[in-house]
Amino acid sequence: MQNFSVGDVSAVLWTPDVSATPPLIFVGHGGGQHKQHPAVLHRAERFVAAGFAVVSADVPNHGDRTPDERLNQIAETVRTVEDLARFQALAAEQTVPEWQAVVDDVQARIGAGPVGYWGVSLGCGLGIPFVAADSRVRAAVFGLAGAVANAEVAARITVPVEFLIQWDDEWIPREQSLALFEALGSADKTLHANPGKHADRIPEHELDSQVRFFTRHLIPAESR
Amino acid sequence: MQNFSVGDVSAVLWTPDVSATPPLIFVGHGGGQHKQHPAVLHRAERFVAAGFAVVSADVPNHGDRTPDERLNQIAETVRTVEDLARFQALAAEQTVPEWQAVVDDVQARIGAGPVGYWGVSLGCGLGIPFVAADSRVRAAVFGLAGAVANAEVAARITVPVEFLIQWDDEWIPREQSLALFEALGSADKTLHANPGKHADRIPEHELDSQVRFFTRHLIPAESR
Repeated sequence: MQNFSVGDVSAVLWTPDVSATPPLIFVGHGGGQHKQHPAVLHRAERFVAAGFAVVSADVPNHGDRTPDERLNQIAETVRTVEDLARFQALAAEQTVPEWQAVVDDVQARIGAGPVGYWGVSLGCGLGIPFVAADSRVRAAVFGLAGAVANAEVAARITVPVEFLIQWDDEWIPREQSLALFEALGSADKTLHANPGKHADRIPEHELDSQVRFFTRHLIPAESR
Repeated sequence: MQNFSVGDVSAVLWTPDVSATPPLIFVGHGGGQHKQHPAVLHRAERFVAAGFAVVSADVPNHGDRTPDERLNQIAETVRTVEDLARFQALAAEQTVPEWQAVVDDVQARIGAGPVGYWGVSLGCGLGIPFVAADSRVRAAVFGLAGAVANAEVAARITVPVEFLIQWDDEWIPREQSLALFEALGSADKTLHANPGKHADRIPEHELDSQVRFFTRHLIPAESR
């Protein structure tokens, strides 16, 4: 595990033992989490064991980032799901170039293999603009987010997507989640819904499925 | 492969080479198909290769069954999805005891291991009453069917379910599909939706997922 920074952005990289230029998965953390939150670590371990490098970066006002008073003030006004969507769109204007710089930096270190993206909730709200903007990303896991802010951006995404819904999400209305899945431009997209509220544990078989999803799309058949 | 009959019901059994008492998967075929339709064979091959025995039986008026004029006459009146639901409920009054007798017969041949059920479209319409009625069934794959006829029966099902939706199904309204998933009484249920119309090919990764689903629920961890 290697901590590093790109400009103001604190990030962490895990690499597998074997592959010379491993495919890279960027894991976007959830709201209130950070780049080494247990939920990120758990996924990073599984992805690294399957032969992927994994990078995660602190979102502004999370983890080791210097507090951003302007974003903090806006964050305090968030009351509704529409407010949250507007806030995430604003934050994405900052995180998209930050994450692209992080991927540049990582590819300079380990080589420029194919890239995948994993992010739910805040990680989906910020991840959709990132995946739409960066053609290095070839496959993405999204979910636990609605269509309010990101439907138009999602329509520009064409890479394979696995999309998660918590069926009893008390924060994201179910029809909003379904609408975001519907909006994705990808021909190859699969919706996985499981019972549970927004922060309830996603079943472990979904992580198994995600490992296979990224393997299918980021690792050439002859190298699996 | 072994063809056999139980009363009027023509059936076929595939068994794996290894296991003494393998878990059994009952595959219900779709409307207009039969027990050895290529879609059934394809799944049977995969399940047998994973260590399962597989049985399939001709639904009345399909495959080798003697034509049933009464059912034929009712089938000809089917115009709407509500008609179809009524027709399937009527057919299930016949198929539930038939399939239970088929499972009795198979268990007398190969031993009484745990049972799984796989069926979409007609195979879901008839499968939900079967799984609700037979406590030997421990896990089920359903889908491509709506809540009109089967919501109340589905609520009595408590075994793990993997549920398929074709996102662009022109025959089953999407909200009907979602409502049937919602109605299932199972605490452990997962919805998998993929782009495509009713009869379009379901992505092969779903069959991979179903092999793992049945393995998880029907094969003890120490035997996998």
